[in-house]
Amino acid sequence: MRALVYHGPGNKAWEEVPKPTILADTDAIVQVDAVTICGTDLHILKGDVPAVTDGRILGHEAVGTVEQVGSGVKNVRVGDKVLVSCITACGACRFCREGSYGQCLGGGGWILGHKIDGTQAEYVRVPFADTSTHKAPAGMSDEDLLMLADILPTGYEVGVLNGKVQPGDVVAVVGAGPIGLAAIMGSKLFSPAHIVAIDKADSRLEAAKQFGADVVVNNGREDPMAAIAALTDGLGADVAIEAVGVPATFELATELVRPGGHIANIGVHGEPATLHLESLWIRNVTITTGLVDTYSTPTLLKLSSGHQVEAGRFVTHHFALNDFMEAYDVFGRAAETGALKVVLTRS
Amino acid sequence: MRALVYHGPGNKAWEEVPKPTILADTDAIVQVDAVTICGTDLHILKGDVPAVTDGRILGHEAVGTVEQVGSGVKNVRVGDKVLVSCITACGACRFCREGSYGQCLGGGGWILGHKIDGTQAEYVRVPFADTSTHKAPAGMSDEDLLMLADILPTGYEVGVLNGKVQPGDVVAVVGAGPIGLAAIMGSKLFSPAHIVAIDKADSRLEAAKQFGADVVVNNGREDPMAAIAALTDGLGADVAIEAVGVPATFELATELVRPGGHIANIGVHGEPATLHLESLWIRNVTITTGLVDTYSTPTLLKLSSGHQVEAGRFVTHHFALNDFMEAYDVFGRAAETGALKVVLTRS
Amino acid sequence: MRALVYHGPGNKAWEEVPKPTILADTDAIVQVDAVTICGTDLHILKGDVPAVTDGRILGHEAVGTVEQVGSGVKNVRVGDKVLVSCITACGACRFCREGSYGQCLGGGGWILGHKIDGTQAEYVRVPFADTSTHKAPAGMSDEDLLMLADILPTGYEVGVLNGKVQPGDVVAVVGAGPIGLAAIMGSKLFSPAHIVAIDKADSRLEAAKQFGADVVVNNGREDPMAAIAALTDGLGADVAIEAVGVPATFELATELVRPGGHIANIGVHGEPATLHLESLWIRNVTITTGLVDTYSTPTLLKLSSGHQVEAGRFVTHHFALNDFMEAYDVFGRAAETGALKVVLTRS
Amino acid sequence: MRALVYHGPGNKAWEEVPKPTILADTDAIVQVDAVTICGTDLHILKGDVPAVTDGRILGHEAVGTVEQVGSGVKNVRVGDKVLVSCITACGACRFCREGSYGQCLGGGGWILGHKIDGTQAEYVRVPFADTSTHKAPAGMSDEDLLMLADILPTGYEVGVLNGKVQPGDVVAVVGAGPIGLAAIMGSKLFSPAHIVAIDKADSRLEAAKQFGADVVVNNGREDPMAAIAALTDGLGADVAIEAVGVPATFELATELVRPGGHIANIGVHGEPATLHLESLWIRNVTITTGLVDTYSTPTLLKLSSGHQVEAGRFVTHHFALNDFMEAYDVFGRAAETGALKVVLTRS
Repeated sequence: MRALVYHGPGNKAWEEVPKPTILADTDAIVQVDAVTICGTDLHILKGDVPAVTDGRILGHEAVGTVEQVGSGVKNVRVGDKVLVSCITACGACRFCREGSYGQCLGGGGWILGHKIDGTQAEYVRVPFADTSTHKAPAGMSDEDLLMLADILPTGYEVGVLNGKVQPGDVVAVVGAGPIGLAAIMGSKLFSPAHIVAIDKADSRLEAAKQFGADVVVNNGREDPMAAIAALTDGLGADVAIEAVGVPATFELATELVRPGGHIANIGVHGEPATLHLESLWIRNVTITTGLVDTYSTPTLLKLSSGHQVEAGRFVTHHFALNDFMEAYDVFGRAAETGALKVVLTRS
Repeated sequence: MRALVYHGPGNKAWEEVPKPTILADTDAIVQVDAVTICGTDLHILKGDVPAVTDGRILGHEAVGTVEQVGSGVKNVRVGDKVLVSCITACGACRFCREGSYGQCLGGGGWILGHKIDGTQAEYVRVPFADTSTHKAPAGMSDEDLLMLADILPTGYEVGVLNGKVQPGDVVAVVGAGPIGLAAIMGSKLFSPAHIVAIDKADSRLEAAKQFGADVVVNNGREDPMAAIAALTDGLGADVAIEAVGVPATFELATELVRPGGHIANIGVHGEPATLHLESLWIRNVTITTGLVDTYSTPTLLKLSSGHQVEAGRFVTHHFALNDFMEAYDVFGRAAETGALKVVLTRS
Repeated sequence: MRALVYHGPGNKAWEEVPKPTILADTDAIVQVDAVTICGTDLHILKGDVPAVTDGRILGHEAVGTVEQVGSGVKNVRVGDKVLVSCITACGACRFCREGSYGQCLGGGGWILGHKIDGTQAEYVRVPFADTSTHKAPAGMSDEDLLMLADILPTGYEVGVLNGKVQPGDVVAVVGAGPIGLAAIMGSKLFSPAHIVAIDKADSRLEAAKQFGADVVVNNGREDPMAAIAALTDGLGADVAIEAVGVPATFELATELVRPGGHIANIGVHGEPATLHLESLWIRNVTITTGLVDTYSTPTLLKLSSGHQVEAGRFVTHHFALNDFMEAYDVFGRAAETGALKVVLTRS
Repeated sequence: MRALVYHGPGNKAWEEVPKPTILADTDAIVQVDAVTICGTDLHILKGDVPAVTDGRILGHEAVGTVEQVGSGVKNVRVGDKVLVSCITACGACRFCREGSYGQCLGGGGWILGHKIDGTQAEYVRVPFADTSTHKAPAGMSDEDLLMLADILPTGYEVGVLNGKVQPGDVVAVVGAGPIGLAAIMGSKLFSPAHIVAIDKADSRLEAAKQFGADVVVNNGREDPMAAIAALTDGLGADVAIEAVGVPATFELATELVRPGGHIANIGVHGEPATLHLESLWIRNVTITTGLVDTYSTPTLLKLSSGHQVEAGRFVTHHFALNDFMEAYDVFGRAAETGALKVVLTRS
């Protein structure tokens, strides 16, 4: 089969590789029907994730059709259309029992396209298939479903639920890239009074409006503190969601929040930030971090199949699997191409 | 009357000042029966709290007897024995309605011995007396009661409740000074499996054992990470409570906690800390900060009057009010004197 | 002035009475600009609420203009346009400090038009004015604001928040009268997957659709269990809200809910219900009851002034104050007149 | 092998039966080292549980040694000493993913000694062994461990955690049989101010004192309402735990609770109770029911192995497996024999 293979920093290829086989009795082999590229894949390609080594097939998001299952797989059947989640769960360890699948101690967590071969291929081996896939709801398109592999649960769990967005809140979202947009889409489910999107790119702010932000601030030329203050009698945002992953945006999020408010970090950080405890110690703030656990996937499946969450809105570009190199190029130049999520499908 | 008056960094005096009078109809004048000194008072004396100006009477903790009340005071009566809380609450603003009295927008919060004259005096004016004092339970000593003015609710709310200590948890308390001991005492109310006290002074660790820590680590010569790992299969503490207020101890607390754990900052910080988001972003941690709100005071009154919390255990030294300068000296040299809390009473 | 006065079961009159005066320093006298009638007022008129005695002015909902305040009122000023809440709060008792104003031990709770004279009059005395009124937001109509005096916070707090409605839930609302509609409107703030309205009157079910129910069941001729089962793989509703107040509807609510689900009772009951513990003991259900506390009024003010909650949608009929008897007649014959909420305004 | 077999109402025998074998690849065969009898077993013997049919081996609590595992069992190994939980969990269904194992949709839940053969035997087949057993902690006795199979998690989850016992609370426990005692033991972990045990048997009240109740009320001759009122300024208990399972005790629990309080039903009920909504609708109470899920077993293992929970305190009588008929006799005449829990061990 063909797959997108990592060959060290800066190098990748869409090339012929052996088709995966069942290694453990709880594995499934899934034929990939639709797959996407994550910002994390770009990080890997820069060499930022040393655990990913030469020869690894990338990708941790897919919708596919089950081709084969191990003898220990009970609930997933050959022929099922399934969502392959970015998080694999052994289902039996302490963290899996608590729904913290991202912290799985039994060999799961984020492993696809990271520690084992991933989804950017014609076929993928999915460990712990019973607890790591979700059956596709009737009538939901592959494309909509694919957005539930990572981006939507990440924005919803790590941003919205960790941040405890409530009706009537003022929510500040720092960063209006795909993950910030997912946080905006998820926040709307709780009917905040205002969603304020903050970014330095007007095109992203325009997208933020489409996804549900009612106030946008270009912090290249406008003061986000003033914008938030105007909406909150000077108190600050109830919730500030960090969706970039650099120190400056995290520090901005901590400044924007009111006494008693929540700062939910979604961004993947590569270096430390400064925490201004000299002003924050007295302000009763709560800061959360998190890798997605995907415990919310069943909820998002209901909301997406009922069109209360318009998952497909993220998809800006379509490709065939054989055009994977071009898809990476378009996604990698998002500032120019306007790409949010690209979808590759088998023909 | 006589009072302990701040005269700029390094200067204070026990001197004659005018007796306070009712300024607002919700004020009470309270004759001080017992009063203590807080670590924050030492910070003020170093000049660390610029809002405190020359001429200010210090102190934000007292037990006293109501001498006079304004016409708008409904529930507090002349002759009542009351606890004067470190936090004053207007009772009507948005934050007071939510129980966040420390963040009061109506003129309260931490004001005694800070923005208005405090309790280290023969008499003190207490604004918003109905919502800023608590009637003494029958049979509770002044000394026990006094520990509920600040230290016990601070350790309990900002450390234990913010940290969400639960039965069976492993709790790490970084810093075994009075506030760390209060966090230890409060943690025991939730029956954790282990309380690990971490400090560089053996005398403080000895006190920590008395207050309920079952494991102590001198991090001047022992590795707290190893001690926590040994108790938690290498996962880390469920809750880490920071009770010092310097960057190093905060950073240690963030290292000690397990994936999914809580870091509760109690320490009063004067400078920023480094937040290692490059490792924490993926670990699902929750970090909280907070000034005490004293919403837990009614609970602590029940537990102290029933001797489930032995509040008086903090008291190491006793003085008469007229010996206030000596009391500051003893409390200021705690490392030598072993002082935890000093109590001054009127004769 | 003129007022609607109760004269024992079945008797009421719009008649001349003395204008109220300040009795306590925390009172305000409010000139009534807009007032409505509650289903509870009809219960009182039937003699169901013995605490209401001959001569009592009815009504516990109003929007008005402050004419006079006692010397102890700090935040409400003469000339302020205010919402007079159905719940009066002393602000200092244990329950008020916890936000449970409906359970006030200091002389508040539901007292207007019950234990003291109410709002169906040209003027009303409002005790504890600082903690029992809310300043009108700029640009919000009296009519919209009036819906926040009782019906909206009741549906939201006692139905939606007690029932813990979450995104993706299936919510069953038993009873589609005004309070059931308020629960439907409030539920939508949390983006449930389905809201199922259940009633025996098609006209009410039609209204339920307008308010946001996507499935309606006439349980005079259809089986609500089957309807819920079809939406939930046979499991039952996540949340069942009782909005009638008779045993049969409460029992239906307990049957409709899934294992682990919530039953939120809003209805005012006059007799016991049967609780089928022989089947419920094993089903992990949570049943809540409650008088509204109005702690959610600040949130609802934000959502209504921002038109995320269309509060005015309840108003079906308008009258002048002098037409109070006619207004009662129209509201009392709601089945014929289609009345949801009637609004009376001064000319 | 020999086993305790049910032969219809009133009939049971300790008799020779075939040894169980692996039926599914996730099964384990466990040799029973210690087993006990539950009050539910007595209900079954009266014919109250029609799902249990002639020929069924009873029992749902055991400590044993793994003799054989199916090919799909990953974490449990032959020779492991394990706790066999009363609840079996498939680990993959919606409820198991939420920790509600008692409501398992995948073939688990309470099945041992109910729908499949149970633990009162020399060997037992345990389905879904990975998610239905817990490895014994080092140094914990079989007898202590056995108390975690059912009674302790039931009292803790369904009574204490559902009831939301908090430090400083007044907790009323209605019924001081074994399950009421478990609720008392569990409540103490949260440091309530008072635990009030209510029963009509003085011997049970004496046991309640040993387990941690500080107030006991014989409601055959004393008024529990008065006792609770005296401790709560007339308000009522913060939490009332029902631990009997008949209408009168449930109704008493609903009367004992304060406005805003919690009623946690643990009792197994055979008939409906009357719910006095005419008085409860306005009192903001929360009523919970529940079958144990055993999600708290890991916590209780930590607390028991650390002796913070003295699990073995329940054990009043010891027998050999071959004395099973006598053990039933002693346990069935608990009022005379004083039996709380009987333990049978293999020789």
